[in-house]
Order: sequence, then structure tokens, then C-alpha cells
Amino acid sequence: MIISQGKARAIIRKALEKGKELELKPLSVAVLDAGGHVIAFERSDGAAPGRFAIAHGKAYGSVMLGMAGTAQMARAEQQAYFMAAVNGVYGGQVVPVPGGVLVRDKRGAVIGAVGVTGDTSENDAIAAMAGIEAAGLTGEI
Amino acid sequence: MIISQGKARAIIRKALEKGKELELKPLSVAVLDAGGHVIAFERSDGAAPGRFAIAHGKAYGSVMLGMAGTAQMARAEQQAYFMAAVNGVYGGQVVPVPGGVLVRDKRGAVIGAVGVTGDTSENDAIAAMAGIEAAGLTGEI
Amino acid sequence: MIISQGKARAIIRKALEKGKELELKPLSVAVLDAGGHVIAFERSDGAAPGRFAIAHGKAYGSVMLGMAGTAQMARAEQQAYFMAAVNGVYGGQVVPVPGGVLVRDKRGAVIGAVGVTGDTSENDAIAAMAGIEAAGLTGEI
Amino acid sequence: MIISQGKARAIIRKALEKGKELELKPLSVAVLDAGGHVIAFERSDGAAPGRFAIAHGKAYGSVMLGMAGTAQMARAEQQAYFMAAVNGVYGGQVVPVPGGVLVRDKRGAVIGAVGVTGDTSENDAIAAMAGIEAAGLTGEI
Repeated sequence: MIISQGKARAIIRKALEKGKELELKPLSVAVLDAGGHVIAFERSDGAAPGRFAIAHGKAYGSVMLGMAGTAQMARAEQQAYFMAAVNGVYGGQVVPVPGGVLVRDKRGAVIGAVGVTGDTSENDAIAAMAGIEAAGLTGEI
Repeated sequence: MIISQGKARAIIRKALEKGKELELKPLSVAVLDAGGHVIAFERSDGAAPGRFAIAHGKAYGSVMLGMAGTAQMARAEQQAYFMAAVNGVYGGQVVPVPGGVLVRDKRGAVIGAVGVTGDTSENDAIAAMAGIEAAGLTGEI
Repeated sequence: MIISQGKARAIIRKALEKGKELELKPLSVAVLDAGGHVIAFERSDGAAPGRFAIAHGKAYGSVMLGMAGTAQMARAEQQAYFMAAVNGVYGGQVVPVPGGVLVRDKRGAVIGAVGVTGDTSENDAIAAMAGIEAAGLTGEI
Repeated sequence: MIISQGKARAIIRKALEKGKELELKPLSVAVLDAGGHVIAFERSDGAAPGRFAIAHGKAYGSVMLGMAGTAQMARAEQQAYFMAAVNGVYGGQVVPVPGGVLVRDKRGAVIGAVGVTGDTSENDAIAAMAGIEAAGLTGEI
């Protein structure tokens, strides 16, 4: 099972809608496939220009490690140098905080990840989950 | 004037529709702002995983140099080492072929660029222009 | 459909056997998944130390572009600056010559690639295909 | 004395078997030579796609510094900025935690290293040692 273009589009729309509903700051949302490659991305009007890299980094690290943002943050807090080293081996492209959400198929296999940035990490994760669930998929924060 | 999120979305939809209408291979489309930063991106089902980097590179070089893909290609054919050097100074992120299309406002100022990849460079540029024009903007191939 | 660890191992063994049968120089073989990530690699005794990067680069470019080594080489010969730019956007990790062989499933979808290096590019491709076919998969040189 | 291809293959098989025996998560194993270059690698089915870089980074830092993962971790905990700097000079390719195991010949000279990743760092190191010892070599955790 893969995240199709249509599903990726749905995830982004619903994540952005959730952000508006909760009156969050302007969000940016990236959807990556099981290999960590971008399927779709949108940056809301008013968001800072560099938001692609943050949204991508949250999702990319989740896919590459098979570990969602919350677990990455826990590891970074226990062992900061380990997550710094992980970031090095992945070319500096890992952002280990909530808002990086794994997407799993029905058997639990990782089929991609969603990265949301713009508000607090916790709110970013809430918006990501809203998008994933609206698309009929299962997320892991 | 900026390319809003809504305009970026419209550009992508129309460029992809043009691709289907012309029976092109599955396209990927990136829309960048006047600073060369990603506003939105979509990769069609069936496109190769690495298409983000190519679409981005076509648009990025266009914005950074203020020179669309066709002009970059002409320069590369005259003076390959120059475009290789340009690529170096922009961190390897420039793809100097058609399909990188500048977006201009009514006074001619560059407000961003669109990068399309998936079919021949010439067809990629046609799809990009279709998207830009459908969004009521002016493109330069 | 994915290339399992067992299939990857079979591809490597059979490619190396083919190399010995044809009395090629010591080969190195990388097997990558549909996202361009390494599943398995082996370097034969007597091969130069840097062979991982070449084997990887042949397979990596094939997956990322959805284009096998022979097609990449043709493009590089027509338009050298394009393949140089592609290499830039993929972090310098693309080696556009035969010996990078796409692996497709029964419906034609790319499920990974094999990269072989050590002898001539043409012989490298023959060894890669022998491995892929012995594993019951379909290759595109 | 070098780690031959056959020895590298044996190390990987036995490390993976040890992982199954101990019911660890799916492991990935890299074997590097005395110059820090990859001889062989395997990623188990079910492991995250980015595991090559972690396994490689554990082994690479071990060879380059002549210091196994446990000693690297001790140094990182005492002086995190030093290991961060080391990581920088080696191009971001060092992961200073257990699971990077030096391989020594009978006279104590370093002939390569093994990197294992997938479970806890401590369990990764146990699997690496099992592989090294089964191949008749001496490891240093």
C-alpha cells in the first residue's frame, strides 16, 4: 500500500483545515512516501519562507528511522549527541520533534510520514493526525 | 504581488491536467516564491521518487538567476563550465533545462517560478505555462 | 511487491557467480529498494576499496530517475550538463552508465535497482541482469 | 590480515541469527575494512529504510578513530562538542554509540569494524560480537 497523490492532497487539506479550526499559526505540511521522498507539500500564506525544510525534516527523520517525532524527541532529550549524529548521517535533514507523524498501513508497515510545522510542535502533530485520519489512514505521533 | 497558496495550488492542478490532456508521462510540479522557497509541490502517481529534486532544481535556478530554463539551457550549451559553476555556488540545486518557468507580475517583476519534470523538457515547459496562465499569471519559458 | 532481503542476497550471489563464470574482474554489487535505500551490498576480494559508492551510484540514479544506466548514459552523451545537474540535485550520488539496472514487478512498477561495478560497464550490466533473473525478477538495463 | 568477503558474509549471518535468537527488532549489519570502506551490508526485512547510514556510521567512526562505540559514547557524554566536531571532520558520518565494534587481528591491529543497528545500542553490540566471534575474529565493543 502506498500513499497516493490523492491521499496526500487530502492529508494536506485536512491538516490545514484543522489548523484553521484551532486558530493555529499558518501551517506548512509535507507528505513523504515510504522511501522518504516528497509526494506533496503546501505552505500557507503568511508562513515563513523556510518552512519546507522543517516540515520535510520532521517527516524525513520519521521515515528514515521508523520512529515518529515524539520518540525522536525523547531520544534527543536523553542522548542529544546521538540525535545530532543521526542528523549528520542523514545530511542534516532530520528535525526530531513532534509534528513528524508516521503513516502506517493496516498491517502496521510504515508507508510514509507527514511533517507539519508552524505552531507548537504538539499542535503541529494534532493537525498532522487530523489529516491522516481524514484520509482513512493510521498515524503514529 | 506574491504567488498565494491558492494560486500555487491552481498552477499545479492545471499543469497536471495539461499533462494528462497531452498524454504526457506522470508529471511533478513545484511552485517557488520570489526567494526561491517552496510554496507547493505535487508528484503524480507513477512518477519516479526523485522527481521533487528535479522540479525544484528547474524552478530554483530560474528564480536565483532570474533566467528561465530555456535561457539557462542556451547558456549551458555555449558554456557548460559556467552553468556547472553556477550549480556549485547554489549548492548543486540548479537544473538548467526547459520546464523551469519564471512567473512575472504585471510590471514584469519576477514573483516566483514553476518547475515541471516527467516528460521531455519541452513538454514539461508547456505544462508549466498552462498552469501559470490558468492562474492568471504571466510565464517566461 | 518489494525486493526482500532473501531476494537481494540471491541477486548478489548470482551476479557474482556470473562474473566468475565470465572471468570478469572482481565485482561489487548493491541492491537498492524502491526509495533508493540499500538493502544489501557485497564487494569481492580484490576489488578497489571505493567500489561501494560506484555500485550504489549506478543503482541510486536508476531508482531516483526511474531510468536505467543505458538510458542515463545516452542522455549524458547528448546533454552532459543535464546529467551533471541531476547529479548535483542528488548530492553527487549518480553514476550514469550501464551496470545500473532497474528491477520491475510484474505490472512494470520499479521496485528497486541493482548496481554492479568492477569490469566494463557492459559486463557489469550482464552480471546484474543474471542476478535479477536468477531471483525471478525482471530487469531493465 | 584482512576481513575477506567470506568472513564479512559470515559476520553478517551470525549477527542476524543472534538478533533472531534474542528476539531483537530487525537488524541491519555493515562490515567495513581497515580503511573504513564497506565490504558487505544487509538490512533485514522490516527494518526502517535509513538503517544503512546508521550501521555504517557506527562502524565508520570506530575505524576512523580506532575507538569502538562504547568508548566513543563515553567521550560524547563527557565532551559532546568534541564528538560533534569529530562528526564534522568526517563528513557527518560518525554515530558514537555501542553497536560499532572494532575487529582486531591476533596481534591487536584493527582490520575493520562492524556496525549493527535496529535494537538498543547494547543489544546491537551483542549481535555484532556474536558475528565477529563466529567468524573466528576478535571484537572490541
